Amino acid sequence: MAPIDFRTEPSRYRHWRLETDGEIAFLVMDVDPAGGLSGEYELKLNSYDLAVDIELNDAVQRLRFEHPEVRAVVIKSGKDNVFCAGANIRMLGRGYELALAADHIMLVDDRRSTVALPETPLLAVLPGTGGLTRLTDKRKVRRDLADVFCTTEEGVRGQKAVDWRLVDEVVARSKWDDAVEARAKSLAARSDRPPDGKGVMLSPLERRSKNGAISYSHVRLEIERERGVAGIIVQGPARPAPASADAAQALGASFWPLAIARELEDAILYLRFNEPNLGVLLLRTEGDAQAVLDHDRLLAQENHWLMREIRHYLKRVFKRLDVTARSLIALIEPGSCFAGSLVELAFAADRSLMLIGTLEGDNRPPATIMLGDANFGLYPMGNGLTRLATRFLGEPHSLDRAKQKIGAPLEAEAAETLGLVTAAIEDFDWDDELRVMVEARASFSPDALSAMEANLRFAGPETMETKIFGRLSAWQNWIFQRANAAGAEGALKRYGSGIQPSFHRERT
Amino acid sequence: MAPIDFRTEPSRYRHWRLETDGEIAFLVMDVDPAGGLSGEYELKLNSYDLAVDIELNDAVQRLRFEHPEVRAVVIKSGKDNVFCAGANIRMLGRGYELALAADHIMLVDDRRSTVALPETPLLAVLPGTGGLTRLTDKRKVRRDLADVFCTTEEGVRGQKAVDWRLVDEVVARSKWDDAVEARAKSLAARSDRPPDGKGVMLSPLERRSKNGAISYSHVRLEIERERGVAGIIVQGPARPAPASADAAQALGASFWPLAIARELEDAILYLRFNEPNLGVLLLRTEGDAQAVLDHDRLLAQENHWLMREIRHYLKRVFKRLDVTARSLIALIEPGSCFAGSLVELAFAADRSLMLIGTLEGDNRPPATIMLGDANFGLYPMGNGLTRLATRFLGEPHSLDRAKQKIGAPLEAEAAETLGLVTAAIEDFDWDDELRVMVEARASFSPDALSAMEANLRFAGPETMETKIFGRLSAWQNWIFQRANAAGAEGALKRYGSGIQPSFHRERT
Repeated sequence: MAPIDFRTEPSRYRHWRLETDGEIAFLVMDVDPAGGLSGEYELKLNSYDLAVDIELNDAVQRLRFEHPEVRAVVIKSGKDNVFCAGANIRMLGRGYELALAADHIMLVDDRRSTVALPETPLLAVLPGTGGLTRLTDKRKVRRDLADVFCTTEEGVRGQKAVDWRLVDEVVARSKWDDAVEARAKSLAARSDRPPDGKGVMLSPLERRSKNGAISYSHVRLEIERERGVAGIIVQGPARPAPASADAAQALGASFWPLAIARELEDAILYLRFNEPNLGVLLLRTEGDAQAVLDHDRLLAQENHWLMREIRHYLKRVFKRLDVTARSLIALIEPGSCFAGSLVELAFAADRSLMLIGTLEGDNRPPATIMLGDANFGLYPMGNGLTRLATRFLGEPHSLDRAKQKIGAPLEAEAAETLGLVTAAIEDFDWDDELRVMVEARASFSPDALSAMEANLRFAGPETMETKIFGRLSAWQNWIFQRANAAGAEGALKRYGSGIQPSFHRERT
Repeated sequence: MAPIDFRTEPSRYRHWRLETDGEIAFLVMDVDPAGGLSGEYELKLNSYDLAVDIELNDAVQRLRFEHPEVRAVVIKSGKDNVFCAGANIRMLGRGYELALAADHIMLVDDRRSTVALPETPLLAVLPGTGGLTRLTDKRKVRRDLADVFCTTEEGVRGQKAVDWRLVDEVVARSKWDDAVEARAKSLAARSDRPPDGKGVMLSPLERRSKNGAISYSHVRLEIERERGVAGIIVQGPARPAPASADAAQALGASFWPLAIARELEDAILYLRFNEPNLGVLLLRTEGDAQAVLDHDRLLAQENHWLMREIRHYLKRVFKRLDVTARSLIALIEPGSCFAGSLVELAFAADRSLMLIGTLEGDNRPPATIMLGDANFGLYPMGNGLTRLATRFLGEPHSLDRAKQKIGAPLEAEAAETLGLVTAAIEDFDWDDELRVMVEARASFSPDALSAMEANLRFAGPETMETKIFGRLSAWQNWIFQRANAAGAEGALKRYGSGIQPSFHRERT
């Protein structure tokens, strides 16, 4: 099977149309039933699968980078009488989970249009793409009404949907277009995106495969299939930082931070969907630490729309690492550039090993870490804290101490003393240490590791986001293992067959 | 098989000794290998199963109620060279999860004694009795050190265990007894329990079975096995409230709030372990609302040790309802006493139905709800908020509005308008509504309902507690369904056999 590819562009979309009209954009969902990821099913009634999601993800990025003038996006259906039939598990729902991701939900008041989360009654699974958590924690729907809603397959319509806070307004069909326009305009007025901003084209991402390595311009994957390991190597800037944010913008998609954000995201997604057996990801960097910090300084500019978008993009990419169900090990060696933004890779890792001194025959200077302002606020985790604050939850003085070291090159033993790396390793132990660790990791149950890591990575406060990726995903994972949903007589198998599913009745 | 019984008392313990010495108590774990719940295994090396837990739970309650003079409890092993081998899944670990529940952990510094959470490397499951979350959020162990610790089967000892915050101190064996005594005394000095308090004996709980009903003094279970339903009926006080907290104390275990706390807890546990097929619990009350509020007033006394213990006990019992993996439906009918503390039953329910007016042939007045101060702070949920604050997360004004109704009897339609019940139902619809709801609930997958309810019940902030019962439990549930742990070639099956488990290597 061909690998799943996340790279696309509007001219190749089969499921969405991206239309812009000044400050308003329209994302029109018009799913091609034959355009699913697999030929085994049809995407009926605007239902979606990963193929549809890939285009949606791309469209959002295009809006962010290529259309800075857009200040409000209207998501709507390109088909009559259906918004979206939800995820393609036997076609149902009304795509309400998609709507829940929006800031404002409008529902036609026509005695027929409803919102619904019928997964539990019909399929014995959860609205698990964030649906339940967005219901209780984003829209703050009262828990007993949420219970009624989630067990009512036909859904809720009209004023009741407003009263229960399921939607923000209902509008008669005759007033629909005017109301949508008015609402989009009023939401656009609250945006601070630049009316005269010139977009940055997201040129096609180049990816070359050769001898088990996959290379982008600044990111490289090295796959060792027998050991179950993939190396992710991020290269520092090849050129000095531009003189200003505007000069950076002139570089377009080749501006280093934007390039690595795109490439690293693509690499993570590639491994996630195409290489499920590579259980250990080794995170490395190569290049000039000072150049990374110089680029960081541009990114930190509060008032430049593009710098802000790139910061948000990097934030999301680092969060993707946080929720990656693989063991993440950062290796900090001579020649590396774990500085500023790139130190987040080490802080996102389950462990980080740092070499003391140099390896025989290598005349580069010993590895250092350089903290930057970027590590103290630019890239919060899903829990709302920086990775360093989460790391030092039990020792706030260590956080202060680290802050005082901003800009100072820290060698291995200093970094270990400051608590910034898991272990500083002598050169004669390095290879063995690494080999033993990877072998140990490979000998453990992948499931136990995924679950353990998911619990250890997010100390401290929880947020809607960590609830979705922690609690809700875990429950949904559980359900998909249960005979009541996935078994031969389960609801997923029997839905649409006319035969009722047969359930084991024990409660856990 | 005989039902699992949670009722016990110190003279019947097989696994623990409860010894008190003035303000210090010793809980000595000395597990009888032959005293497990099932004859299929031995409880080797102080490992525990539910039989051991039941006694521990009882001992804690005895300390709370019968020994108010106790201000510090030392948990230790009655066996040489082992503290506790952990939960009885093939005996391992060092009972570190048990230690994690304590305020202060002392470790012998003898080059041999370690703490460990070896579940992941040895059994392919998680230290899931709260272990991982207490590690990161209670003891705030740095995440990468936690990763090393949880994947190191031999554990961590000596000063490193202190440095990593796994234990609070290490003490040489020669100084051990003195150090334990000194530490217990210094912790005792921080307690405000009464030095001269006279305990309340927890007399044996009486439980009678008859015709499918199980009765305590003030709580009744009505089991309808065909429908998969159990009614839990809580009766209000049979006598007026005593004149003072001291008079209440003189009533001992028959003081109404203490009696219902004990009985309701026993009923919930009875259903949980002995009746897994009863998926819907109908919560009802019977009695005099004013008498409930009068009792609440006594409980609210800040400075009386017994009133405080009873408040905490009720708080924990209501929390047990919150994490009960059954659908909870409160029925508010004529003759009921949903007032003050007892309204928490309705707020803990997934839905509450309230009858408008009366049923034919019933000359009792219409049902009312009466809020009390108890509903606004006495019984926080695991998320740290009251059930009402959680309920009204999206509409704080409704919380204020409810507060203004304290003490006012609210009939069904008023209660519905205030958002305090899910639905007010007309008398002619009552039976049908109830029947249809129970039938619908019974037709859904029990797994999907458990997962849905676990997600809808806890809006708002998360805490260590909700993480344990939400995220960690869900992941552990998932793992126990996976072949890598529970399959014929999985780690749980093969542990101790000398044959390595065989793992599927895909990461989810």
